Amino acid sequence: MAGKLKRLLIGRPMKSTQLEDEKLGKLKALAILSSDALSSVAYGTEQILLVLMAAGFAALWYSIPISIAVLGLLVILIVSYRQTIFAYPGGGGAYIVAKDNLGLSPSLIAGGSLLVDYILTVAVSSSAGTDAIISAFPALHDYRVVIALLMILLLTIMNLRGVTESASVLAIPIYLFVISIYVLIFSGVINFILGGAHSAAPEFGRAVSNVSLFLLLKAFSSGCSALTGVEAVSNAIPNFKKPAEKNAAATLVMMGTLLAGMFIGISLLAYWYGIRPELKETVVSQIAESTFGRGILYYFIQGITAIILILAANTAYSAFPLLAFMLAKDKYMPHAFMVRGDRLGFSNGIIFLSILSAVLVVIFQGNTGNLIPLYAVGVFIPFTLSQLGMMIRWIKLKPSGWVIKLTINTVGMLTTLSITLIFIFTKFTQIWFIFIFLPIVVYVFIRIKQHYVNTADQLRIDLFHDKPNPKGNTVIIPVAGVTRVVLNTVSYAKTLSDNVVAVYVGFDDESVRKIEQRWNEWNPGVRLIILKSRYRSIMGPLRKFIDTVEWKKAESDHITILIPQFITKHWWQNLLHNQSSFMIRAYLLNRKDVVVATVPFHMDK
Amino acid sequence: MAGKLKRLLIGRPMKSTQLEDEKLGKLKALAILSSDALSSVAYGTEQILLVLMAAGFAALWYSIPISIAVLGLLVILIVSYRQTIFAYPGGGGAYIVAKDNLGLSPSLIAGGSLLVDYILTVAVSSSAGTDAIISAFPALHDYRVVIALLMILLLTIMNLRGVTESASVLAIPIYLFVISIYVLIFSGVINFILGGAHSAAPEFGRAVSNVSLFLLLKAFSSGCSALTGVEAVSNAIPNFKKPAEKNAAATLVMMGTLLAGMFIGISLLAYWYGIRPELKETVVSQIAESTFGRGILYYFIQGITAIILILAANTAYSAFPLLAFMLAKDKYMPHAFMVRGDRLGFSNGIIFLSILSAVLVVIFQGNTGNLIPLYAVGVFIPFTLSQLGMMIRWIKLKPSGWVIKLTINTVGMLTTLSITLIFIFTKFTQIWFIFIFLPIVVYVFIRIKQHYVNTADQLRIDLFHDKPNPKGNTVIIPVAGVTRVVLNTVSYAKTLSDNVVAVYVGFDDESVRKIEQRWNEWNPGVRLIILKSRYRSIMGPLRKFIDTVEWKKAESDHITILIPQFITKHWWQNLLHNQSSFMIRAYLLNRKDVVVATVPFHMDK
Repeated sequence: MAGKLKRLLIGRPMKSTQLEDEKLGKLKALAILSSDALSSVAYGTEQILLVLMAAGFAALWYSIPISIAVLGLLVILIVSYRQTIFAYPGGGGAYIVAKDNLGLSPSLIAGGSLLVDYILTVAVSSSAGTDAIISAFPALHDYRVVIALLMILLLTIMNLRGVTESASVLAIPIYLFVISIYVLIFSGVINFILGGAHSAAPEFGRAVSNVSLFLLLKAFSSGCSALTGVEAVSNAIPNFKKPAEKNAAATLVMMGTLLAGMFIGISLLAYWYGIRPELKETVVSQIAESTFGRGILYYFIQGITAIILILAANTAYSAFPLLAFMLAKDKYMPHAFMVRGDRLGFSNGIIFLSILSAVLVVIFQGNTGNLIPLYAVGVFIPFTLSQLGMMIRWIKLKPSGWVIKLTINTVGMLTTLSITLIFIFTKFTQIWFIFIFLPIVVYVFIRIKQHYVNTADQLRIDLFHDKPNPKGNTVIIPVAGVTRVVLNTVSYAKTLSDNVVAVYVGFDDESVRKIEQRWNEWNPGVRLIILKSRYRSIMGPLRKFIDTVEWKKAESDHITILIPQFITKHWWQNLLHNQSSFMIRAYLLNRKDVVVATVPFHMDK
Repeated sequence: MAGKLKRLLIGRPMKSTQLEDEKLGKLKALAILSSDALSSVAYGTEQILLVLMAAGFAALWYSIPISIAVLGLLVILIVSYRQTIFAYPGGGGAYIVAKDNLGLSPSLIAGGSLLVDYILTVAVSSSAGTDAIISAFPALHDYRVVIALLMILLLTIMNLRGVTESASVLAIPIYLFVISIYVLIFSGVINFILGGAHSAAPEFGRAVSNVSLFLLLKAFSSGCSALTGVEAVSNAIPNFKKPAEKNAAATLVMMGTLLAGMFIGISLLAYWYGIRPELKETVVSQIAESTFGRGILYYFIQGITAIILILAANTAYSAFPLLAFMLAKDKYMPHAFMVRGDRLGFSNGIIFLSILSAVLVVIFQGNTGNLIPLYAVGVFIPFTLSQLGMMIRWIKLKPSGWVIKLTINTVGMLTTLSITLIFIFTKFTQIWFIFIFLPIVVYVFIRIKQHYVNTADQLRIDLFHDKPNPKGNTVIIPVAGVTRVVLNTVSYAKTLSDNVVAVYVGFDDESVRKIEQRWNEWNPGVRLIILKSRYRSIMGPLRKFIDTVEWKKAESDHITILIPQFITKHWWQNLLHNQSSFMIRAYLLNRKDVVVATVPFHMDK
């Protein structure tokens, strides 16, 4: 039943040899990897306006220079990351670059903050997608958390089905989104030129008295949330078709160009239309409404924005499991993240990501504005570490043209470092706990590694000296009566060892007398030992008995507990029998150095 | 942690030899067994008035003759049950009497309906107790289900602690309840004589046009709910101190006398005061308010009524586990109901009762009125069967004075049978499903018995011919590498058999090549068999391999699977390792006739 449902949702298992087929071409890669970056236009401009509104409507014109600064930053990041892609064709995420050039702790910080960030990507994108839906249908406002969680569920199922299939599903809406945003921008610009704008824009360039440097920096750092997702391409190079690095670099540039145009277009229109950020309607929704009215085009743009935001979360679904795989390979995360599921995806990473992001959505009640600062700072920490790593690399290796490359990455590093500092300076109250959480994550990574190293030490054997060394074997059979199950177990025990004892735990004299008599009559060639239990507990006396045997024998012999167990034909019949055998096994397994075996006797009816 | 909490709530385990100490004296027995019957006065009169109100206020005077009829029935029941107590000093519940005299099906019907009824006792009493609290504090109305469930939880804990201790707790409030109800009645009567009654009573004896025979019978059957609980004493005779039957009979008569006085007193006052049944305030609450006003005495009566109703539920906690024990002893219920817990009570019966009654409270949303008809019909079915059984007994055994005894029981049987028929006639819509549910319960009883008989047949051996018959043993070790855990398991395997093979399931050529090389270098004297898995599943190939071995060997050999398992030092470390060994064991145990043993290797750090 559960198996059939799984098959229906996830699909048939795939062979390991089908793995190569799952690589991505440029256009599909653009679809699957760029949705995070491109979808940022749905909330980037709005984050800037929200901060500026604190100084009043007149201050909103600052959004234009700030947007241009953000674009400048985008150019720096793309040029820097292009270098990373060619330097690390095997996958150049911040974790790899930092590990290669900066050493252990920085790489773990980068890895940890990226993992946290992918979780936030899913939480932010599903929340922002919900915002787009609610802007169009305000009646759904009370169901925002449920809507966001349904999106996460959908993504989980899609990703468990496998990479290529989900990419095919995603390619169309992403292109539709890009086209419709550009249509919106062009229509909006024409509309503006023809004088169709409804409200007056704030006067450009006019100084506003209560706009401080702090406020401008805060607005700029908020705008940087539009750049999240740029790193996705460089992490995913091994997923590309060959030549992987060229395809990846081309994808990165395409993505940057599309993003730049959309972001500046939305910012310009928001300014021209004099749009104020609202609690219940997004900026993009207001622009679309002003341009097209609440007609088919408006609803189409809201719908496609929601879809693209859902799909932005999908970026994290390819990045997170891959990074978790790399960390698991280096033994900083559990082995389970290295296992490929039925459909060749890293199922455990996918499921882990879904659960944690769903928890975040519930905690933050789907509030996009509160999630974004955490999200952005989580991105800029690995950005900075990655650039720093590249700088060290150029200095060490000194390839041809290394001075230019070093300059590019130095500029990049200084920029992203400054932005990280601006975040800490302007939004400390919203992001402080990431600085507590990250060290904990790094500590856990190190403890996990330690455990794996310890385990390997303890399990390692010397192939030439450590040989099997058979000893004797004392077999103990707990019995509850003289039955066919016991007969079955005693027969089996006699094939294992000549040293077999049966043990009976009696609660009263009557039952003890009865079993002693029957056992002697039967005379199976095995001694029966009687233990009395005044507290009606089987485990207590049995444990003491095993302790005694162990104390006497352990030097020379193994100790084996054989548990006679009859297996009922129907599961409900188990309710009618004591589960002592199960309890004995569970109890002994964790406490004793004895071998516990269950000897089954299957019932016919 | 869980163990400590259990110890705190339930108390230290007790020795089996402490059992005799737990017997009840007359006064304690009255406290623990009569609360069900005595507490019925909290709702008995009200149930009569509720029915009569359908014909208007003027019809309420009929409550007096109806109450007298109910008293007459009480006398019949007590006289009948006194006979049962002396005839069955070992415990004369309807199940025992019916089994002894009427045969299988009637006894199972009696047993089943009593079990259902005890569950209803808990549900009704906790709901009615909640009514008393809510009459005093109407603000709590919305929390009625929660309050009722908390009562059930409290009772569960008390009863898991053991019989005597709970009886000591209970004795005081029960006597306080009896005293305060009598104080209420005397004060009320004096108040009435002095002319302090507020409203006019309906005129006594005046025919009311729309009072039909049907309505009177319905009111009478509703009033019979005051008699529930009378059978508790005869079921619990083995719990009494010696001489058990004399003490039990005396307790029964004491109980009947107290009940009669209280019931008729409340009915009279309700009539004299012209009280109408209300949805949000009980009749007893109205009488107490009219007599004392809302002062300390009023709140004391409401409080003690609530407590007595909670304790009424406690009656079921001594009766249900005992009846379940008897049914389990006859193999109609699972053995688990025969096991005494740490404190010598039948813990499983106690917990089972709590869960089912809590479910009823939730389903009926704590509505006393809807639960009572089910409750009452569930009592009168075993009443009737028990009387019928006694009739047959007298006719068969013919002891001295048997004609009088037969007459008494015949009158009793005819009366209770009539009342059962009246129930079916007047309240069919409320009770029909008990007639569907009871046959199901009886069917389950019979199926359980069948299963135990089948099991015993299959497990029975001939002590002289069925002797242990050792065969060969093929040992299979699934391995994941060449490690100390595997060394440990191979060493052990060699003590069991000369026929040992190791099996490795490989997902790719690289890992297969590596293990083959290491295994050959190691050369432990055990052959390694390689299985390939294209779908990255261990279980599939392993199962096929075992099938093959079984097919070749099963005739001559046992098959043993030895699972190498390392036991981590801390539980969380398990998260870092595959749980394949656990899965292999779970999978094979239910499907294969092979012995599955876990060979543990305990880690030091």
